[in-house]
Amino acid sequence: MPVTVNCDMGESFGLYRMGDDAGLMPFIHIANVACGFHASDFNHMRETVRLAKQHGVKVGAHPSLPDLQGFGRREMRMDREEMANALIYQIGALVGFLKAEGMGLNHIKPHGSLYGMAGRQDHIAQAVCDAADVYGVPILGMTGTLHETVYPARGHRMIAEFYGDLEYRPDGSLIVTREHDAKDPDLMAARCVRAILEGKGTATDGSDIPVRCDSICIHSDTPNAVDIARAVRAAVQPYT
Amino acid sequence: MPVTVNCDMGESFGLYRMGDDAGLMPFIHIANVACGFHASDFNHMRETVRLAKQHGVKVGAHPSLPDLQGFGRREMRMDREEMANALIYQIGALVGFLKAEGMGLNHIKPHGSLYGMAGRQDHIAQAVCDAADVYGVPILGMTGTLHETVYPARGHRMIAEFYGDLEYRPDGSLIVTREHDAKDPDLMAARCVRAILEGKGTATDGSDIPVRCDSICIHSDTPNAVDIARAVRAAVQPYT
Amino acid sequence: MPVTVNCDMGESFGLYRMGDDAGLMPFIHIANVACGFHASDFNHMRETVRLAKQHGVKVGAHPSLPDLQGFGRREMRMDREEMANALIYQIGALVGFLKAEGMGLNHIKPHGSLYGMAGRQDHIAQAVCDAADVYGVPILGMTGTLHETVYPARGHRMIAEFYGDLEYRPDGSLIVTREHDAKDPDLMAARCVRAILEGKGTATDGSDIPVRCDSICIHSDTPNAVDIARAVRAAVQPYT
Amino acid sequence: MPVTVNCDMGESFGLYRMGDDAGLMPFIHIANVACGFHASDFNHMRETVRLAKQHGVKVGAHPSLPDLQGFGRREMRMDREEMANALIYQIGALVGFLKAEGMGLNHIKPHGSLYGMAGRQDHIAQAVCDAADVYGVPILGMTGTLHETVYPARGHRMIAEFYGDLEYRPDGSLIVTREHDAKDPDLMAARCVRAILEGKGTATDGSDIPVRCDSICIHSDTPNAVDIARAVRAAVQPYT
Repeated sequence: MPVTVNCDMGESFGLYRMGDDAGLMPFIHIANVACGFHASDFNHMRETVRLAKQHGVKVGAHPSLPDLQGFGRREMRMDREEMANALIYQIGALVGFLKAEGMGLNHIKPHGSLYGMAGRQDHIAQAVCDAADVYGVPILGMTGTLHETVYPARGHRMIAEFYGDLEYRPDGSLIVTREHDAKDPDLMAARCVRAILEGKGTATDGSDIPVRCDSICIHSDTPNAVDIARAVRAAVQPYT
Repeated sequence: MPVTVNCDMGESFGLYRMGDDAGLMPFIHIANVACGFHASDFNHMRETVRLAKQHGVKVGAHPSLPDLQGFGRREMRMDREEMANALIYQIGALVGFLKAEGMGLNHIKPHGSLYGMAGRQDHIAQAVCDAADVYGVPILGMTGTLHETVYPARGHRMIAEFYGDLEYRPDGSLIVTREHDAKDPDLMAARCVRAILEGKGTATDGSDIPVRCDSICIHSDTPNAVDIARAVRAAVQPYT
Repeated sequence: MPVTVNCDMGESFGLYRMGDDAGLMPFIHIANVACGFHASDFNHMRETVRLAKQHGVKVGAHPSLPDLQGFGRREMRMDREEMANALIYQIGALVGFLKAEGMGLNHIKPHGSLYGMAGRQDHIAQAVCDAADVYGVPILGMTGTLHETVYPARGHRMIAEFYGDLEYRPDGSLIVTREHDAKDPDLMAARCVRAILEGKGTATDGSDIPVRCDSICIHSDTPNAVDIARAVRAAVQPYT
Repeated sequence: MPVTVNCDMGESFGLYRMGDDAGLMPFIHIANVACGFHASDFNHMRETVRLAKQHGVKVGAHPSLPDLQGFGRREMRMDREEMANALIYQIGALVGFLKAEGMGLNHIKPHGSLYGMAGRQDHIAQAVCDAADVYGVPILGMTGTLHETVYPARGHRMIAEFYGDLEYRPDGSLIVTREHDAKDPDLMAARCVRAILEGKGTATDGSDIPVRCDSICIHSDTPNAVDIARAVRAAVQPYT
């Protein structure tokens, strides 16, 4: 399978701006578009879908826990059915804008705490699959978590993400930070190429860890996100 | 065209209950399901779509201004594009639940102040059509308003509503009240039959007014709504 | 200290109604008024404060996690400072309505999941105290939890609640149910009197458990809440 | 009366940032702090009140229509009592944070569409006064509108604002724009001094218009807001 570069997009809300979507869009293949629960609103969703279309970028849904003030980063106790319903609602709303622009839904990538919860709580991973059943698209996820077992067991393709701008612990787990420091674009690009070619990453202690890289995730809130995206895209272009 | 009976449904929210959906569903042909902006949420939408399916009731979207606390009954200044986007979002979310239940979208009926605004403000009527363009379904509306002119001019079928449980002024306009009194079910049923057969209604001063009745709207918040629905359905059954 | 009867009040929202506030108000001494985060809004808060004033009922704040759709019953991960800020905001809003009606704040009673979280998570109990520091009022809580240790350690009086309409486990913990069955008012009243006079309750297995009863909580969502409130108030009147 | 410089502050929300509050605070006397309805949340309100305290800046409430997504800039139909209740709620919440920091409320300045509505709709101006009755503080407003007549008629001092970074029409009305261009700080400062000393402003056609300047409003969303604030503060310092 060809590798893709993905990025969370459309996270502005009302007058509030977040992320340089226009700057990043040229360097990515697939956009994870917020659906109004942690970020975005109906206007920004429309605009983001249009922007993706202009750049030939495919659009997936980036649904969240219902928590705008917390940006979907506060864990909430949700049961399976309400979680599935929350996902179906958000993804359906995005599909409306895709339909308006003559596009189809490409994938689903749960956002923030929901992403983590789906990796650790079986009933949440099942809820993600319940929603994916409705829309019939693959799910972005992370190896070493329930994503890797539950999604395929339910018949859904998991697109394994490699994080080009985050650090990994020696046990292979990701260090998720609220704020991302600027990173060396060339170093990030080299890591991505190694992940693709060798299936290896470098942990914080310098040791090698096994990784799988179906898609490279670039965070739009890393200070030099556009520079990283440009360097990564150029470096991985032969494998995409 | 056969006449239908329609009712606003799925207006509960969280723990809050509104309307006897289960009691009314047996007597209607088409349900206008709230989409989370004036009422409902992802759980109630799912449940309402399932209930409609069980009763063989077709489901349309009942989108609103974004105003949960005001139940969509406070006019807001909206421009055409943001209004259209708000509609596409809500309808798409509902379509997600319909898809989950193997159903299709039947129609659109704007809710509350949005219904009235679309009848008086051209740019809002156009926004309703912008959303209807995406989903390709007819729109419920009222004669004597912009609904009647703008929707067809934009190529959308308008299903003309007759209100079986509200009063009409001598000029043909509807008296919309926040709270609905109980009505005599037989009188309501007789009015509906007359509207269908003669195209006439009775105004508050006793005079005849011309009406068009493609679909009869029953309000779930009328105190004896189920009795009215039962009587109306029985009376109009031959014409449906 | 005289015993009081307390009840959660003002939990309607917009057009949605919850609880028979007018029916219950004559039988209680102190009302826990929702502050707009799990229930209520600025209109219902005003109306509830006025109703309490008419009945000579003292008003406390009933703040919650920020979760209207979940009625404050879904646990969320909150840190101490954001939790304290959420409480100060809600209580301040209520104090505005009390000021408008010439009343003072009587107490604080955290709602739903927040009540439970404050009983188990030290940083949440501290956050409740941070807010109580600002307003200088006692806090309703439950024995056998962090309420009993943290609130007094921070210098705040804890008013111990006895639940007249819920069951207790043999270990003294409360069985919290989403829906409350109707209860025998006389039995409930007798339990309350015993709790006051003997400091004892009856667990589900019939065994005696130690309880403390500074205030009796009546749930407005128990089907026969008004009957229970009337019976309880009459029975405990000598001790209030 | 000494002249003050005021600025809208605390308009960030969750992870979203708006306005250079830290940069502007040194140059203003009074801050209009958002209360969570058009912008801000309980965390940003706390932080903004603390920042104001550090700079010796007095804090007023900047309440709004309930419309976070529209930033309070979409007119909504509100009746007097619900508007007053919305204001009492928001102001009370801010007063909570002021109490936490040992400060008092300095004034009220309605935000956005509410500011304009209070200038044109008597029942909204009355609602502002209903809220001001509760808190007993002056109200920032604009000459030539209902602010000037209704507020004093209800016994409230109106602090007349002069907009140092907006243009005035020859009829004295203000040109309110969604986005503000950068302005020449020295020109703005000179205009402010003239407004104070001569009671005159310059309209877009070059003609003189009468103005009243009790307080100078600086918009934090003007691109060079800090430069303007610095220049204006320096120029008007002798009159403050």
